[in-house]
Amino acid sequence: MDNELTAENRRKLKEISTASVTTALFKRGLRNTYMQGPQRINPDAPRLVGEAYTLRYIPSREDLDTIDVFEDRTHPQRQGVEDIPEGHVMVIDARGDRSAASAGGILLSRMMVRGVAGVVTDGGFRDSGEIAEMNFSAYHVGPSAPTNLIKHRAIALNDPIACGGVGVYPGDIIMGDADGVVCIPAHLANKIAEEVFEMTAFEDFVQERVLAGHSTFGLYPPTDPQTKTDFAEWRKSNNR
Amino acid sequence: MDNELTAENRRKLKEISTASVTTALFKRGLRNTYMQGPQRINPDAPRLVGEAYTLRYIPSREDLDTIDVFEDRTHPQRQGVEDIPEGHVMVIDARGDRSAASAGGILLSRMMVRGVAGVVTDGGFRDSGEIAEMNFSAYHVGPSAPTNLIKHRAIALNDPIACGGVGVYPGDIIMGDADGVVCIPAHLANKIAEEVFEMTAFEDFVQERVLAGHSTFGLYPPTDPQTKTDFAEWRKSNNR
Amino acid sequence: MDNELTAENRRKLKEISTASVTTALFKRGLRNTYMQGPQRINPDAPRLVGEAYTLRYIPSREDLDTIDVFEDRTHPQRQGVEDIPEGHVMVIDARGDRSAASAGGILLSRMMVRGVAGVVTDGGFRDSGEIAEMNFSAYHVGPSAPTNLIKHRAIALNDPIACGGVGVYPGDIIMGDADGVVCIPAHLANKIAEEVFEMTAFEDFVQERVLAGHSTFGLYPPTDPQTKTDFAEWRKSNNR
Amino acid sequence: MDNELTAENRRKLKEISTASVTTALFKRGLRNTYMQGPQRINPDAPRLVGEAYTLRYIPSREDLDTIDVFEDRTHPQRQGVEDIPEGHVMVIDARGDRSAASAGGILLSRMMVRGVAGVVTDGGFRDSGEIAEMNFSAYHVGPSAPTNLIKHRAIALNDPIACGGVGVYPGDIIMGDADGVVCIPAHLANKIAEEVFEMTAFEDFVQERVLAGHSTFGLYPPTDPQTKTDFAEWRKSNNR
Amino acid sequence: MDNELTAENRRKLKEISTASVTTALFKRGLRNTYMQGPQRINPDAPRLVGEAYTLRYIPSREDLDTIDVFEDRTHPQRQGVEDIPEGHVMVIDARGDRSAASAGGILLSRMMVRGVAGVVTDGGFRDSGEIAEMNFSAYHVGPSAPTNLIKHRAIALNDPIACGGVGVYPGDIIMGDADGVVCIPAHLANKIAEEVFEMTAFEDFVQERVLAGHSTFGLYPPTDPQTKTDFAEWRKSNNR
Amino acid sequence: MDNELTAENRRKLKEISTASVTTALFKRGLRNTYMQGPQRINPDAPRLVGEAYTLRYIPSREDLDTIDVFEDRTHPQRQGVEDIPEGHVMVIDARGDRSAASAGGILLSRMMVRGVAGVVTDGGFRDSGEIAEMNFSAYHVGPSAPTNLIKHRAIALNDPIACGGVGVYPGDIIMGDADGVVCIPAHLANKIAEEVFEMTAFEDFVQERVLAGHSTFGLYPPTDPQTKTDFAEWRKSNNR
Repeated sequence: MDNELTAENRRKLKEISTASVTTALFKRGLRNTYMQGPQRINPDAPRLVGEAYTLRYIPSREDLDTIDVFEDRTHPQRQGVEDIPEGHVMVIDARGDRSAASAGGILLSRMMVRGVAGVVTDGGFRDSGEIAEMNFSAYHVGPSAPTNLIKHRAIALNDPIACGGVGVYPGDIIMGDADGVVCIPAHLANKIAEEVFEMTAFEDFVQERVLAGHSTFGLYPPTDPQTKTDFAEWRKSNNR
Repeated sequence: MDNELTAENRRKLKEISTASVTTALFKRGLRNTYMQGPQRINPDAPRLVGEAYTLRYIPSREDLDTIDVFEDRTHPQRQGVEDIPEGHVMVIDARGDRSAASAGGILLSRMMVRGVAGVVTDGGFRDSGEIAEMNFSAYHVGPSAPTNLIKHRAIALNDPIACGGVGVYPGDIIMGDADGVVCIPAHLANKIAEEVFEMTAFEDFVQERVLAGHSTFGLYPPTDPQTKTDFAEWRKSNNR
Repeated sequence: MDNELTAENRRKLKEISTASVTTALFKRGLRNTYMQGPQRINPDAPRLVGEAYTLRYIPSREDLDTIDVFEDRTHPQRQGVEDIPEGHVMVIDARGDRSAASAGGILLSRMMVRGVAGVVTDGGFRDSGEIAEMNFSAYHVGPSAPTNLIKHRAIALNDPIACGGVGVYPGDIIMGDADGVVCIPAHLANKIAEEVFEMTAFEDFVQERVLAGHSTFGLYPPTDPQTKTDFAEWRKSNNR
Repeated sequence: MDNELTAENRRKLKEISTASVTTALFKRGLRNTYMQGPQRINPDAPRLVGEAYTLRYIPSREDLDTIDVFEDRTHPQRQGVEDIPEGHVMVIDARGDRSAASAGGILLSRMMVRGVAGVVTDGGFRDSGEIAEMNFSAYHVGPSAPTNLIKHRAIALNDPIACGGVGVYPGDIIMGDADGVVCIPAHLANKIAEEVFEMTAFEDFVQERVLAGHSTFGLYPPTDPQTKTDFAEWRKSNNR
Repeated sequence: MDNELTAENRRKLKEISTASVTTALFKRGLRNTYMQGPQRINPDAPRLVGEAYTLRYIPSREDLDTIDVFEDRTHPQRQGVEDIPEGHVMVIDARGDRSAASAGGILLSRMMVRGVAGVVTDGGFRDSGEIAEMNFSAYHVGPSAPTNLIKHRAIALNDPIACGGVGVYPGDIIMGDADGVVCIPAHLANKIAEEVFEMTAFEDFVQERVLAGHSTFGLYPPTDPQTKTDFAEWRKSNNR
Repeated sequence: MDNELTAENRRKLKEISTASVTTALFKRGLRNTYMQGPQRINPDAPRLVGEAYTLRYIPSREDLDTIDVFEDRTHPQRQGVEDIPEGHVMVIDARGDRSAASAGGILLSRMMVRGVAGVVTDGGFRDSGEIAEMNFSAYHVGPSAPTNLIKHRAIALNDPIACGGVGVYPGDIIMGDADGVVCIPAHLANKIAEEVFEMTAFEDFVQERVLAGHSTFGLYPPTDPQTKTDFAEWRKSNNR
């Protein structure tokens, strides 16, 4: 499919920032692509980049959501953990409710072992102490010990969902870093990756100049023509 | 289907209160059936009772949600208004976001004319001045002028949804009065209607006694055996 | 007790506004006397003035707070309704949680019949449709159908409590109008009643002048000496 | 100035709805023009339309904001009330904080008498019972008794401000109805008034058809060519 | 007393997680035992386990809560710090208000020296930089510099209280880890400790299998009979 | 100017805590000086002390706030970064809205290089991963990737502003540590620095005694005369 993220662009997305990506999306009129709330649990985990695979929760009901629901292999939370393709990101719509867990250490371990790229919820994870030490990209709003049945019923896999106030469609590209998580519409991902990779070279150049004492005027944005000349030279000498 | 609400019980639900219904559901272990947020717009409209027909929104996206989406007859908001069966209640999952409208006067008018029982959103309606004067049961969190495209994309009809923090399944019985809206699981609706209709007779008796100066002790709850005797007599003489 | 509110001052408090009272308390260094949240349910009920009689709630627990707790006559909610003295105001600390009811129509009716001055909660009441038509002063944050056991356990009577972010001590004077509810520390109530009654005469004079087209400069506050002369005359001719 | 609202368009704005205006602004790419929070106090007051005259508050400080600040005629709240031009709307940036009043009955009376079009705050007014009966358009988030000094310091007149999450520049056109308040950028006001006046004729036609039993399909939006023909006839016969 | 936590079970509670405990409590119908908000300040401090000793705050009042209240040895905050028994946990009901401190470094140091097990508030602590380096278990919602008198008045010791939305009775067992704090009703603590200790062995086995590449199906929950056989062997060979 | 902070007192402010400063301000009747929300990003950066230089944001508008606004050297955000004097603190009024960034790594780097003391916002910064490693004092509510144009328009430099619920006037002394940020009115800064420096010596003495096992009674506050004698000796032997 022509929307498919190329290997090259997947690599580029791992070297650029969510901040820069939101700027490129803003230039295309997209203002609501950053998820409000989810933050990284483990700073040492790999950078998060992958296709969205969604899991939708609704409020649980006492007569339906008893402890034995998990015995059913078609229960969406349990099935999703086994079905999500390698390299994808599980994105959970927890309605922004972190008063009970979205998932915990065992399910995240299973996804890590299966080669999943990471997991994002606008709720919270339990076992957050262990998760913080896993080599797995996990983003949540904050820890939450209670079993998810107390508030959540997993109702569907791969629906378009809301997560952190952003509309997420299966296959959108999810990307995360220290600032949090951004959702890039699938049809834009390759273009954004390329454009922002270039932008990032320029920003690295600007940052270097600023640290060397240059004023931001004329430099950022590059309204002084000299800036463009300097940048061209910098790229050559820095192989960027 | 054996879950179907009988005409008799539909009538009973129109004469009892959401408050009493939450008590009966609580006695069965159901603690989360009242929607937090939605309130009645028009006190003079008929009492709200009907089967849930759901409409799910996710956050809109600028490139997808342009003004011409409504030209598509399969757009879930527009299709839902034409398809919802007579006597049903449209329940909208607006993610509790009232910063843009869930719908407005024209769509509500169309549903009213089609014989729909009412509409509930955990967001807000526009044209709320007109809606307040329609003979149609509408519940929202508060007015909201902006067109729904600014925040919402209608994504699906008749999914199980969240509304006001409650899980709502298509076919559940939605009931509203001055206190707001309660969702009765479909399989319990007939039993609840019958049980609460009886409870209500007792509460009317209690209220009458209290206004006549009786202490609540022994009367409410009826721990004094005399209360039960008195109630039996009261029912007879009041034809309840 | 010398803090006791005189009959004359109780009458005066019924003729002045919560707004003016907060100003007089502010002049004495008291900045936090207005309850954030509670609003009047029934505008036609008598003005609320009375001594605080408090009821404290904590979160309920499923094993303790079953429907039969009300059979116990020492249950604080039920006992309070029978014990609160005539002319007092029941003030409920619901922790600002209106997701379940603080009380309902029957208990409020009992208090009305017993001569209680009114009731205030920083949560919500059920049966709010009926309460809106009772001749009884009730203030809450908004309607709430669920039985209180779902969230609240009545734990104590006449503790000092929080209500709407204000510290309330039993015996403080509670006063309500269209703006909401203010709590006057018991030891200040007589002085405040007298002082604000005078302030109110001046404000009525100001309002009359303003409606007649006077500038507020020099008038409000009365920095122009003529204002004081005019006010003195106005009082005489208006018997204030 | 060419941005000046014509008398004809001021009249038109009084006959159209904030809902329709947000749609027209959305079509021009403006998504954030409706103030979140402020609601109408008095439904019987005239429709709110007028130029924004702004008043900005910051948090008060105990050593600066004593009761005697009002003796200074240059105090922005007091000066603004005397200086705001006839036909304008005072828009108060209260930082969305309604825990103390933005203003009260006397100042609103003065503005009413001076011919001011109305007042909007994203906080609350005191004396809300009286204001509800004044023939003056006032919008707030809810009542608030405490004197404004407890939380607010009036710091500037006619700064660009935030109100209800919207950027408001002096001279923008403020418009209010039952749904709340919208801010129309000054340079767009004449165009929006004209365009929405036309849109409204069409929506009135649609509403009439819907109440007569027509489906919304083809009618709203008018994808069926017959709709346009019918509308042309309706305008003629209804003089619209 | 037969509710008393045994030394063995106190030790077990230090080796299991709050997450697992909420599941065991959920199985008994207890859904609201995890405190929403409080998080661990110092990850290197000992695991938190101990009996609740409560301290209740209400909003302060300027005329009562002056800096010299602390000179009174019966002031509940100061008395509590000296009276709380060794091994207990001070649980503070700060009404979820972290805008002023619940306590600071000196009082926490005193409790640490006295052998108190830890401290929990649903507000915030001041001196949080120092506390983060103390060998003492402290949980709060976040730092808060202002002296507690600005918002809080310590009003009572060992009342049943609310903390983080949970009802806490003196003597309940408070337990904390990286996910936060759970309150175990006193009468269940021994049973929960034993049951969850067993559950934890199983979860450790599951985690090991998952990391080795096993599917969660049949394993978690152990619907495949082989899982139970494997677990029995694992326990033997791992001495669990 | 006599309000100017002396070099000696600037040094003292770097050795005392925001917690102690709020107490000293409270003793003078100032209760609202601590900013609710902003927290330190980089614990290893220098202690924050400096004069406030303010930057005020209002909500952005799509037609005004396009990506090219930054080309204008008078754009307040960009101009402020170049104009803020050495040793000052940039304080940003972001209306508590962290849904888009207040600024990012490049602008903070420029301020760091220019000798600015630090930066505070009641919103969030982007590039928070890099900022966490800069040798520069930055305080925000949490990370935020989106470009500030999405929500904010920089509108003015050196207005009195609100930040974290506190009124901040240009020239006030801003001070930050692990607990967050406090704003000291300019005219009090020298006195507060001296007074709290003394208070801190006493608190260090108290802390030492408490860690050595002393009761807080008589010691903190020093109601036992022996405490004052002991403290005098401690100062001498510790050169404080």
